[in-house]
Amino acid sequence: MRLASDNTGPALPQVMDALMRANEGHVSPYGEDEITETARDKVREVFEAPEAAVQFVATGTAANALSLACFTQPWQTIFCTPLAHIQIDECHAPEFYTGGARLTLVGEKDKMTPADLEAAIAALPKGDVHASQAGPVSLTQVTELGQLYTLEELRALSDVAHEAGLKVHLDGARFANGCIALGCSAAEMSHKAGIDAVSFGASKNGCLGVEAVVIFDPEKNWELELRRKRGGHLFSKNRYLAAQMLGYLENNAWREAATQANANAARLVAGLRDVEGCDFTAEPQANMIFARLPRAVHQRLHAGGAIYGLFEGPLETGHPDEPLLMRCVCDWSITEAQIDQFIALAKG
Amino acid sequence: MRLASDNTGPALPQVMDALMRANEGHVSPYGEDEITETARDKVREVFEAPEAAVQFVATGTAANALSLACFTQPWQTIFCTPLAHIQIDECHAPEFYTGGARLTLVGEKDKMTPADLEAAIAALPKGDVHASQAGPVSLTQVTELGQLYTLEELRALSDVAHEAGLKVHLDGARFANGCIALGCSAAEMSHKAGIDAVSFGASKNGCLGVEAVVIFDPEKNWELELRRKRGGHLFSKNRYLAAQMLGYLENNAWREAATQANANAARLVAGLRDVEGCDFTAEPQANMIFARLPRAVHQRLHAGGAIYGLFEGPLETGHPDEPLLMRCVCDWSITEAQIDQFIALAKG
Amino acid sequence: MRLASDNTGPALPQVMDALMRANEGHVSPYGEDEITETARDKVREVFEAPEAAVQFVATGTAANALSLACFTQPWQTIFCTPLAHIQIDECHAPEFYTGGARLTLVGEKDKMTPADLEAAIAALPKGDVHASQAGPVSLTQVTELGQLYTLEELRALSDVAHEAGLKVHLDGARFANGCIALGCSAAEMSHKAGIDAVSFGASKNGCLGVEAVVIFDPEKNWELELRRKRGGHLFSKNRYLAAQMLGYLENNAWREAATQANANAARLVAGLRDVEGCDFTAEPQANMIFARLPRAVHQRLHAGGAIYGLFEGPLETGHPDEPLLMRCVCDWSITEAQIDQFIALAKG
Amino acid sequence: MRLASDNTGPALPQVMDALMRANEGHVSPYGEDEITETARDKVREVFEAPEAAVQFVATGTAANALSLACFTQPWQTIFCTPLAHIQIDECHAPEFYTGGARLTLVGEKDKMTPADLEAAIAALPKGDVHASQAGPVSLTQVTELGQLYTLEELRALSDVAHEAGLKVHLDGARFANGCIALGCSAAEMSHKAGIDAVSFGASKNGCLGVEAVVIFDPEKNWELELRRKRGGHLFSKNRYLAAQMLGYLENNAWREAATQANANAARLVAGLRDVEGCDFTAEPQANMIFARLPRAVHQRLHAGGAIYGLFEGPLETGHPDEPLLMRCVCDWSITEAQIDQFIALAKG
Repeated sequence: MRLASDNTGPALPQVMDALMRANEGHVSPYGEDEITETARDKVREVFEAPEAAVQFVATGTAANALSLACFTQPWQTIFCTPLAHIQIDECHAPEFYTGGARLTLVGEKDKMTPADLEAAIAALPKGDVHASQAGPVSLTQVTELGQLYTLEELRALSDVAHEAGLKVHLDGARFANGCIALGCSAAEMSHKAGIDAVSFGASKNGCLGVEAVVIFDPEKNWELELRRKRGGHLFSKNRYLAAQMLGYLENNAWREAATQANANAARLVAGLRDVEGCDFTAEPQANMIFARLPRAVHQRLHAGGAIYGLFEGPLETGHPDEPLLMRCVCDWSITEAQIDQFIALAKG
Repeated sequence: MRLASDNTGPALPQVMDALMRANEGHVSPYGEDEITETARDKVREVFEAPEAAVQFVATGTAANALSLACFTQPWQTIFCTPLAHIQIDECHAPEFYTGGARLTLVGEKDKMTPADLEAAIAALPKGDVHASQAGPVSLTQVTELGQLYTLEELRALSDVAHEAGLKVHLDGARFANGCIALGCSAAEMSHKAGIDAVSFGASKNGCLGVEAVVIFDPEKNWELELRRKRGGHLFSKNRYLAAQMLGYLENNAWREAATQANANAARLVAGLRDVEGCDFTAEPQANMIFARLPRAVHQRLHAGGAIYGLFEGPLETGHPDEPLLMRCVCDWSITEAQIDQFIALAKG
Repeated sequence: MRLASDNTGPALPQVMDALMRANEGHVSPYGEDEITETARDKVREVFEAPEAAVQFVATGTAANALSLACFTQPWQTIFCTPLAHIQIDECHAPEFYTGGARLTLVGEKDKMTPADLEAAIAALPKGDVHASQAGPVSLTQVTELGQLYTLEELRALSDVAHEAGLKVHLDGARFANGCIALGCSAAEMSHKAGIDAVSFGASKNGCLGVEAVVIFDPEKNWELELRRKRGGHLFSKNRYLAAQMLGYLENNAWREAATQANANAARLVAGLRDVEGCDFTAEPQANMIFARLPRAVHQRLHAGGAIYGLFEGPLETGHPDEPLLMRCVCDWSITEAQIDQFIALAKG
Repeated sequence: MRLASDNTGPALPQVMDALMRANEGHVSPYGEDEITETARDKVREVFEAPEAAVQFVATGTAANALSLACFTQPWQTIFCTPLAHIQIDECHAPEFYTGGARLTLVGEKDKMTPADLEAAIAALPKGDVHASQAGPVSLTQVTELGQLYTLEELRALSDVAHEAGLKVHLDGARFANGCIALGCSAAEMSHKAGIDAVSFGASKNGCLGVEAVVIFDPEKNWELELRRKRGGHLFSKNRYLAAQMLGYLENNAWREAATQANANAARLVAGLRDVEGCDFTAEPQANMIFARLPRAVHQRLHAGGAIYGLFEGPLETGHPDEPLLMRCVCDWSITEAQIDQFIALAKG
C-alpha cells in the first residue's frame, strides 16, 4: 500500500506500448521526427489551441522554469503561493532559468484569492527602479494541498493579472486530475480561463517522464526552443518523449487514468471518514488527501506496511490519541483491494 | 540506409527489456529507489571507481554542462577545441550552467595537443583581475570528427592541465566506441589517464535517453545533485533513467553495441575505399566517417535513398567529379545488408 | 530644510580636500596606487583587522551584493528582514550577483531576533535537494527604521548563524551612526560581535560615493577582486575612491560627522516631542526618525518648505487631526537653525 | 614621464571645479537632481540626439556591459575583435550582464572589416537551435591598438550588422580622441554612422570616473535604468557623477583635452621617428603609440625614469639591438617638456 505520492507507481500500459511501438527503425533526431510532430499536434488538439507553442521536457521543474522564463525579466518577481512547488521543491530552478528573478509569496498556503493578488501587485511601487518589478503569476492546479481552483476562480485571478499587464502560468503537474475533478476540458481549465501558459504534467498520471510546455502565444515558440536547448532539455531521441505523450493522450488514456486516480482517492476518503478521530484538513477534491488521525491509527497502518507521508510528530512516541497529519496520494494503479486493506488497518 | 547520426536508431533490446522490467509496482521517487542505486553502483564498477559521484541525466548537453559547472567559476574559461560539442552544439548551455564562464578555443579542429593547451593556458595572464581566468579543460572522446586520443595523449593533456591546477572533463558521448577502438577499459580511458569527470554517454549507443555524470572526486556529489535539481534534470521516476543504464551495462551490452557499431563503420570504410574518387579526410577510427566523394556518387546515393550528412556544396548542381564532404555515423542497428547496399550504390 | 534622506547633502570638507589633494600627478591605475593602499590600511586599522580583505566600490548596493556573493551559492537563501535594503531597494542585485540565490524574510519589520533566525533556519529541510539551502545572514545596522541592534543582539544572532555553519553580513550603510549611538568601535560592532563581512558605508555620512567591502577572512580577497571587476566596479582611477575614504577616516572625521548627524536628530526629536499629537513609532536611536503627526502639522511643514518622507495618506485631503507617518533623516550638514525652524513650523 | 596609460593622470581643472560647485546644499538623490538632468541633456546635445537614453556610470566596463546587455539575449553571441576590451580586459563582465552570452572573435587584432563581419555572421547556422545565435556587434573607437575606423568604415560595418538585423555598439573609452583625430562630431562618429549605442568615455580624457551610456533608441531607457540599478551602478549622490560630465562637456573641455592628448602623442611620434631602430607597428592615429625600439633604448629610458608598457622580451638581458615593443599613451596632462625629455632619453 504505497500512497506516499503519485510518482511512485508504474507507467500506463498504453504509454509503455507507445514507447515500444516508437522503438522502430531510424528517425530524425532532436524532435524533427513524425512521432514528435504528431504528439505536439495531439496536445494542441486536446487544448483546442491549434497555434500554441508546444514542446516536451522530461520533468515538471523544467516545464515550470522554462515557461516562466519566457514571461519573466530578471528584475521581476513571480507571484505564487507559499506552498507552490516552484517555491518549495525546485531548488531555485525558477531563479536560475530567469537569471535572478524573485518569488513573491501570495496567500496563506496553497491558494491565492484575487484580493490577495491585487494587494501583492499593489504593494510593489510601480516604476520604482529600486524595487522588484511585477512579473507573471504562477498558479497550481491541483494545488499542493490537493485543492482546486474553480474555473471562475482561475478566471478572476487571470483578470487581475491581465489588468496589471501580467501573464499567468499554470503548474499543471496534476492537470488531468483537476480536469476530471472539475469535469471540464483542458481548454476550459487553461486559455479559456485566461491562462497564458501551462506546464502540462503527464509523469504523475502514468508516464515515465514527460511534460508538455504549452504556451498559447505561438510567438514564444522559438524562444522556448532556445531556452530548452540551452537548459539541456532537448532530447536527441525525442521520439521517446513524444511517444509517451502520444500514448497518454490517445484514446483518452490520460482522462481515464485521472478518473481512476480520483476515484481511488474518493474510496479512501469514504473509508477514512468512518475511522474514529479522522479529520480532513480540507475536503479532498482530487487525488490527494490530507487528514489527521490518532497516533495509534498510524502505528497500526505502519505495522501493516502502509507507506504515506506523515507529519507533525514522531510515530513511535507520544499519546496514542494525539493526531498526526497524513498525506496520501492515489495514482491510477492503486487497487481497490489495497485501499480497502489500508482502511481496514486504519479501523483496526 | 540512415547513416546521418547514431542518435536516429532504435534502443537496444536489452535496454527496452530493462525498462519493461522496471515498470513494476511502486518505488521511491527522485532516485531513492533500488534500481537507481544498483545502476549507480554498476557505473562505479565499470569505471573501477567505487567512490565516484555518479548521477543520471537524460541528455549529453546536461551531462556536459553540469559536470563542467562543478569545476568552473563564472570568471574562468573552459579550454576546448573549435569543434567541441560544447562550443558548437549546445546553445550556450556551458555558459548558462557556469553563470557566465567562457570557452577558449584550443587546437585547429577537433583535437588539441599538449603544446596547444600549454600555450593557451600561458596566454592567460595569471593573477590579472582584468583577464579571463584559467578553468577546466574539456576533451571529447571519440572526437566530433570521429578521431581518437590515445591513452598517452589523454594522459599528456591531463598532465598539462593538472600542472596548471586545472581539472579535466571528458565529453564521452561516444565513450563506448572509443573504449572499443582503443581496446581499453572505462577506467583506463578516464581516471587512469587523469580525467577528473566524464559525461558517460549511453543515448547514442543504444539507450532511449540517459547519460551518467561521473565525477571521480566523491566530494562533488552533493553539489552535483543540487545543480542537477536546480537545472530541472532530476527525474521524479528516476528508475526509468536508471533502468536504461542498467540494461546498457549488464552483460557488457554497451561494449557489444559499440563493437558492432565500429565494425559497421569499418565495413563501410572498406567498401568505400574501392569507390573511385573516395578520399577520407582522416583515417576513420571508431564509428564516424568523413570522406569526400564525387558529386555524381552522392547523386546516386541520394537517388537510392541513402541518408547522411553532406557538406561543401550543392548536391544537384555542379561538376559531377567535384568532391563533396560526407559524414556517416554507424550505430549498432545498421545491418550489413544496408551497408553493402550503400556501398553498391556508391560504386554505381 | 531637507530631511528626506542622508544622501541629499554635500560631502564633508575633509573629503573634498582629500579629493583635491589626490588630483596630483600620475599614479598607477586600478587600485595599484599609494592612496588606495593607504586607504585600505586605514580601514583595516579602524576595524582592528590587519588581515581583512578590503576593497572599495562606489555604491552600497554594490558593496552588499559583492560581499554577499562571496558567501552564497546560487541554490542558497540569504536570511534578512522584510524591510532589508537588499530586499526592498536593490532591484535584485543580490539575486544577480549570487547567480540566482533567494532572500528568506525573517522577523516582522527591520529587525530579527535569534529565535526568529533559528526558526527560519530550522524551517529549511537540511540535506533536501529539492529545497532552498541555508545561506548567509544579512543584518542592517542602523536598521532601515532607524533602530539599533545592541552588541549583545549582534553577537546572539551571529552565534545562531555560526552554529548553523552560516556567515553573517552587516549592511553598514549607516555604520558610523550606529557606532556613535552605541558608543563602540568599528571592531566591536563587527568581527568582535561575530560579523564576517561589512558593507562599510561612507556615502551617506559625508562622502561623494564610496563604500568599503570588508571581509574579515583574508582568503576571500581574490574572489572579491574578481567579482568586483566582473561587476564593473573596479575604478581605473581608483585613487579618487580611495581618497574619499581616506579623508573620511583621517582625524576621526567619520565619527565626528556621525556624532553631528545623531545630535541633529536628537535635537529634532526633542523639539517634536512638544508638538501636540506627535507619536514616534519607535524611540529614535541614531539619525533617522519615524513619527506620526497630525495632517495639519504636515500641511504647515510643507507650506513652510520642509522636505521629508511622508506616508499613510494624502497630505491635502482628510481630517486635519488624522496622523500621517513622517520619516526624517539627519546628516552632518543640517544646521541647528534649520532644525529649529522645522520644529517651529511643526508647533505652528 | 608616465606614459603607460591615459588613466594615470589627474582630472581636468574644469571637472574638479564642476565637482566643487556641485557640492552645495541638498538635492534629490538617485539622479533626480538638476545637475543630472542638465548633464544628460548636455550629452544629448553633444550627440545631436534629443531623445536618446542617457545614463551615467563610473566605469567603462559597466558602460559596455550594460549597453550590450540591452541588446543581447543569453543565447546570442557578441561579435568583437580578438583585442577588444570586452574580450581581454573585463573579466567576463559582458557574459555576466548578458546572463551567459558569448563573444565571437572577428578580424585579426583590433579591427574588423565588413567582410570579416559578414563571414562571421554567415558562419553561424541561422535558425539552428543548437548553435550560438547572432547578437550585436561591438566596435572600439579609438581601437585598443590606437587605430581608427574611418566614418565610412563604421558605416559599412553598421550596414552589414543592420542587414543581418543586429545592433551595433561602440566602445568609446577614447571617443573624444577619435572625434578629434577624425575631425568629426560625436553624432557623425555614432548614430550618423549607424551606431546604435555608445559607451561614451570620459574618465581617460580628464574625469575622475564617469562614462555615459548612450542608447539612441529611447525605448531602451527604462531597461537600461533597471539594469544599472540591478548592477549596483546607480549612485545615490548622482550629482557627483553628473557634475564631472558637465564640467567635461561645457565649453568644449572634452574636445580641447583630446586635442591636447593627440597633439602630445604626435609630438612624441615625431621625436621617436628620429630614434635609430624605431619602428611603429602601425601609424599612430590618436593618442596611443605602439613602436618597437632596440633594447638598449629601453634600458636608457628606464634608467631615466620613463614609465610605459613594455612587451616582447626582458628589459635587462638580451642583445642590445633586439627590438622590444613599447606602448605609450598620452593624456592631456603630459607636458611638452616631459615628452621632449622622453625623446632625448630615447636618442641617448
